[in-house]
Amino acid sequence: MLQLTAENQVQTWLARFGAALEARDVAGTTALFAQEAYWRDLVCFTWSIVTHEGRDEIQAMLAERLGDTAPSSIAFEPGTARETDGGGAEAWFRFETALLRGRGHIRLVDGLCRTLLTSAIELKGHEEKAGPRRPRGVEHGAERDRPTWMDLRRREEEALGTTEQPYCVIIGGGQGGLALAARLKRLGVPALVVDSLARPGDAWRRRYRSLCLHDPIWACHMPYMPFPDHWPVYISKDRMGDWLEMYADAMDLHIWSSTTAKGAAYDPVAQEWTVEVEREGRPVTLRPKQLVLATGMSGAPSVPSFPGAEDFRGEQCHSSAFRSGEAWAGKKCVVVGSNNSAHDICADLWEHGAEVTMLQRSTTLVARAETLFRFIVGKLFSEDALAAGITTEQADYTAASRPFAMLAELHKPLYREIRRHDAEFYARLEKAGFMLDFGEDESGLSLKYLRRASGYYIDVGASELVASGQIALRSGVQVARLLPDGLELSDGSKLEADLIVYATGYDPMESWIAQLISPEVAERVGHVWGLGSGTRRDPGPWAGELRNMWKPTRQEGLWLQGGNLQQVRFYSRFLALQLQARMLGLDVEPRDPRGLAR
Amino acid sequence: MLQLTAENQVQTWLARFGAALEARDVAGTTALFAQEAYWRDLVCFTWSIVTHEGRDEIQAMLAERLGDTAPSSIAFEPGTARETDGGGAEAWFRFETALLRGRGHIRLVDGLCRTLLTSAIELKGHEEKAGPRRPRGVEHGAERDRPTWMDLRRREEEALGTTEQPYCVIIGGGQGGLALAARLKRLGVPALVVDSLARPGDAWRRRYRSLCLHDPIWACHMPYMPFPDHWPVYISKDRMGDWLEMYADAMDLHIWSSTTAKGAAYDPVAQEWTVEVEREGRPVTLRPKQLVLATGMSGAPSVPSFPGAEDFRGEQCHSSAFRSGEAWAGKKCVVVGSNNSAHDICADLWEHGAEVTMLQRSTTLVARAETLFRFIVGKLFSEDALAAGITTEQADYTAASRPFAMLAELHKPLYREIRRHDAEFYARLEKAGFMLDFGEDESGLSLKYLRRASGYYIDVGASELVASGQIALRSGVQVARLLPDGLELSDGSKLEADLIVYATGYDPMESWIAQLISPEVAERVGHVWGLGSGTRRDPGPWAGELRNMWKPTRQEGLWLQGGNLQQVRFYSRFLALQLQARMLGLDVEPRDPRGLAR
Repeated sequence: MLQLTAENQVQTWLARFGAALEARDVAGTTALFAQEAYWRDLVCFTWSIVTHEGRDEIQAMLAERLGDTAPSSIAFEPGTARETDGGGAEAWFRFETALLRGRGHIRLVDGLCRTLLTSAIELKGHEEKAGPRRPRGVEHGAERDRPTWMDLRRREEEALGTTEQPYCVIIGGGQGGLALAARLKRLGVPALVVDSLARPGDAWRRRYRSLCLHDPIWACHMPYMPFPDHWPVYISKDRMGDWLEMYADAMDLHIWSSTTAKGAAYDPVAQEWTVEVEREGRPVTLRPKQLVLATGMSGAPSVPSFPGAEDFRGEQCHSSAFRSGEAWAGKKCVVVGSNNSAHDICADLWEHGAEVTMLQRSTTLVARAETLFRFIVGKLFSEDALAAGITTEQADYTAASRPFAMLAELHKPLYREIRRHDAEFYARLEKAGFMLDFGEDESGLSLKYLRRASGYYIDVGASELVASGQIALRSGVQVARLLPDGLELSDGSKLEADLIVYATGYDPMESWIAQLISPEVAERVGHVWGLGSGTRRDPGPWAGELRNMWKPTRQEGLWLQGGNLQQVRFYSRFLALQLQARMLGLDVEPRDPRGLAR
Repeated sequence: MLQLTAENQVQTWLARFGAALEARDVAGTTALFAQEAYWRDLVCFTWSIVTHEGRDEIQAMLAERLGDTAPSSIAFEPGTARETDGGGAEAWFRFETALLRGRGHIRLVDGLCRTLLTSAIELKGHEEKAGPRRPRGVEHGAERDRPTWMDLRRREEEALGTTEQPYCVIIGGGQGGLALAARLKRLGVPALVVDSLARPGDAWRRRYRSLCLHDPIWACHMPYMPFPDHWPVYISKDRMGDWLEMYADAMDLHIWSSTTAKGAAYDPVAQEWTVEVEREGRPVTLRPKQLVLATGMSGAPSVPSFPGAEDFRGEQCHSSAFRSGEAWAGKKCVVVGSNNSAHDICADLWEHGAEVTMLQRSTTLVARAETLFRFIVGKLFSEDALAAGITTEQADYTAASRPFAMLAELHKPLYREIRRHDAEFYARLEKAGFMLDFGEDESGLSLKYLRRASGYYIDVGASELVASGQIALRSGVQVARLLPDGLELSDGSKLEADLIVYATGYDPMESWIAQLISPEVAERVGHVWGLGSGTRRDPGPWAGELRNMWKPTRQEGLWLQGGNLQQVRFYSRFLALQLQARMLGLDVEPRDPRGLAR
C-alpha cells in the first residue's frame, strides 16, 4: 500500500515535470518545487556543479538554461520509489538532454519537490569504450607488421608528451589523479599524469608504517576495478599503494613518475598551458589544453616557526615526514597537534616504546571509527548495505542526492545519538584533560571535513591511550619557544624532548596554485574546498558546493580533483565529462553564479 | 502460461525428489529418473567428479552414498524455470548435504529427470573468508609491536616452505596454479606455488609476439577478480602475463618463482610428499600433504627425430621455443604441423616477410573464431549473454550441466550449420590442398578438445593465407629425412629451408608424472585428460568425465589442475574444496567406480 502510494506520487510528479520541461515552461516547471527546494545539478543543466537553493534560483537557472539543455525522456527507474518520513516519497529516474544521458533523484513532500538531483552519466555518441563498446583487441586476418598490444602501448607512451601533446595534464598520481586518468582513458581523452615519486602508490607506501585507511573498504573502491572481496575492512597503506600501481597498469594509464612540476602558465590566445616539468632530472615542456591539480586536499606542510627552533638539539619534523617510531624507544617525544596525524603518530611512537606527550592547542572533534561506521558510514557503505541492494555506486548517488545545505541539520541528531552512545568514552577523555568539540554548530565530523578538512580524529585506538595517560597530554597551552632540550609552554612550564613532531596541518589547497602558477591566479581562483559556511577556516559567502572542486574555476583550463576515495571515485566522472566535452568542442559554457561570481 | 507450466513441472519434481532423498528412499529417488538419465556430481555425493549414466548407476550410487550424504533443504531458485524444446523443463535449485551447500540443475522430459547436476558450493562452517566474513584488517586499539599487513605477509612468506610446511604444493604458476591457489587462500588452506620462470605471467610473455587469447574475454576471467570491462575481446599475451602477476599479488598468493621441481615421492605411512625443488639454484625439500600438478595440459614438447636432423645446417626448434619471425625476413621457413601453433607461427613468419611453407601431415579441424563465437561460445560468453543475464558464473554452471556423454550429439548439428555457413571458406581451403576433418564423428572442435586437446586450428587469419597460397602448403606428405639445406619428403620431393619449426605437439600430460614422480606412478594413475571416447588419441574405456582432472587419482595426494581458462576457473573450486575437506580431516572417501577402478 505505502509502496504504491510512493510510486504513485513520484510517477505523477515526474510526468508533470517531464511535460513542463518538454514544453520549455519555466514557470510551470518552477511551480513543481517547494518554496525551500534544492536542485543540485552535476553538469547536466549548468555544465558545472551547482546547487540551486529556493524557487527563485531554480527559476532563474531554468530561464537561462532550459532551452539549450533541452531535457527529454524522463523515465522513472522501476523499483526505486520509497516512502519517506512524513508521508513524502523519493525515487530515481533517467533522462536525456541535448548532449547527454543523466540520472536523477527526487524527494517529494506534499506533492512538491523538496530536493532534486540531476547528474550526468555520459555524452550521447561519446560513451565509454567498455562493455558492448569494448575494442576487439586483435583484428583477425593476417597483416604484415601488425603492431601488438605491447607495441601500441609503447608507441603511445613514447609519443605522449614528446611528439604528441596530451589534451590534459594531471599533476599528482595518487588516487585522485589515477581515478580521473582512468575515466579520461575510457572516454578517449589523451591524458598524462605527472608525479614526483618513483612509483605509483609511493605516496601511501612512504607514510608511517601503522597507517591504514580510516574509511571502510566499501567506501574506498577505485572506479571500474573493485578491490577483491576477501580484502579486509581497513586496508593497510602498503596494500593500497600496491593496488594503485596495479590499477594504473590495468587501466592503461600514462604516468610520468619521478617527474616534478616546476611551473605552469596559461596562454589565453593559444588557449593552452605551458607546463614545465623535470622528468628524471631533465626539463620537459608540456602543452596541454587542460591542467588538473590532483595534488591532494592539502597544500604544503604548515610548520609553525617557534622562537628558538634553530637551537633545539633534538630532531624535529613535520608529520608528513614522520615514518616510524622505531628509532625512538625510551626517548622523549612531543607531538604538537591533536588531529588525525597527531593521534596516529603518538600511537605509533607509543607502540615503539617512546615516552610520548601530545600537545593539544585547541579543541578537537573525536569520533570512534566503530561508532561512525555504525551511525553514519555503514548506512551506505557496508556488507549490510550491500545485502540491502545498496551497491557502492548506488551509495555514491544516494550521498550526492542530499544538498550540502541540509547536511548540518541531518547530522546534528546523529551526533546527539553518538554522544549518548559513547558518553563514557568522552567523559574519560575529558577527565584526562582532552578538549573536545563537535563542530561549532555540533554538526559533527562530516561537516567539519567538508568545511575545513581538519580539526578531528577518527579514533582507531589512540584515544584510549590518551584517556589512560599512556600518551601524556598537555592541553590548552601553546608553545612559547623551543629550548635546546625541549619546549617552553605558554604557562611557563617546560617539556623535555628528543623529538618534536609538528602535526600542525597543511597550507590550504590553493597554495599549490600560487606555487605552481602564480599568486595572481591563486587569488583569482580563490579559496579551494569548503562550503562557505562562515565557520572557522571556512569563510563565507555560502557556496552551496565544495568551492572550485571538480568544476570550472575562474582560471580557464584549470581544474581541481581531490577529496577522499569516495569523492575521488564519484566526482571524477563529472570532471572527466567536462574535459571530454571541451575536447569535443561542445558548447558547455558553465552557469554557476554563486561559484564563479565574486 | 508456458513459464508457469515449466515452473510447475520443476517444482513438482523437486518436491518429490526432496521427499524421496530425505526419506533415504533409494528406489523412490531412482524412479524419478528417466531410464537414460545422467546424474553429474561435482563433489557432493561422490567426493569426486563423476557422471552416473542410466538408472542402474544412479541407483547403485544412491544405495552406497545416500545415507552418509544426507541431502536436505532442496530449494528451487526462483525465476530459473524454463520450458525446453519438446515440452520439457529445466531449472536451478539449492540444497545441502551433511557437509556442504550445493547448487543443482535439472532437465525434465515427460516429468522424469533426464539430466541432473549436483555441484558443491562450500563446506558448511568453513566458507570463504570473503564478503561478510572478510577480516577487519586492523584491530582498533593500540598495541605494542603490532605487526602491519606487510609484516604479516613477509612473515608468512618467510615461514612457508621453511619453518612451516604448506598443506599443498602446486607445481606450475600459470593461470591454473594461480586460480587454484587463490581459491585455497580464501578457504584457509596453506598452499605454495612453485614455478620455474622468473615472474608470474612469464609463460605468456615469452610466447611468440602476435599471440592473443583465442577465447573471448568473457570466457577467460580468473576467479574473484574480473578483467576491467574496457579490455578488448581478445587479450594479448603480454597483457595476460601482466594480469596474472597482479592477480597473484592482489590475491595474496605465495609463489616461489625461479624454482624447478626436481622430483617428488609419496610416503604412504607419513601420508605426505617429499618434493625436491631447486629455488634460485639452492636445493630445498618441501613436505606437503597434497601435491597438485598445474603444469599445463601438455607434457614436454614432442620433437620428432628425423634421420639427418644433425646434418641440417639451418635452425630448427620446437614451436614452444619459437619467439618471433623477426629474424627470418626473406628466409625459407618450414613449419611441420597444421594445428593451432603451426598456423600462428606460419602467420607470424609471413607477417615478418619470410617465405613460409606449412607441412600438413594429417587432417586438421579448422573453425573460424568468428563462427565459433557466433554458433557456440557466444551463446554463453558474450555481451549478448551478459545482457540476457548470463553472467560468467552462470555460463560456467550452464556448461557444466550438460553431461559429456550428450555433447557429441549436441554439437553435430551445430557443425552442420557451421559448415554450411562457411562453405565457401572451406572450399577454398580444400582447393589449396588443405586436408580438413570435423572430428571422427563430425562432432567438431569442442569434442576434439575434450578428447585429445589437439588436432585443430581456431582460425584468426592464417587460413586465408593458406587458401591464397601466401603460406605455401604441402599436404599429405611426411618428412622422409633432413638434408643439410632442407627436407626430403615422403614423395621424394625436396623442400629448402633456413628454419624448421616443429609444431608437432606435446607429450601427454601424464609424462610430467613419470618425469617428476616415477613411471610406476604415471602408469598407475593412467591416462590424463580425454573422455575415453575410443577415438584417435582418446582410447577407451568410456570415462564420462575428463580422466584424472580435478579429482582423486589412483595416487593418494596427487591431483591435476589444468585446461583452458574457463575450466581452470570453474573446476578449481571443486579441487580446492576436496583439498580443504582433507585438511579438515572430513570423511570424504571418493566413490568413482568408472574413474578409479581399472
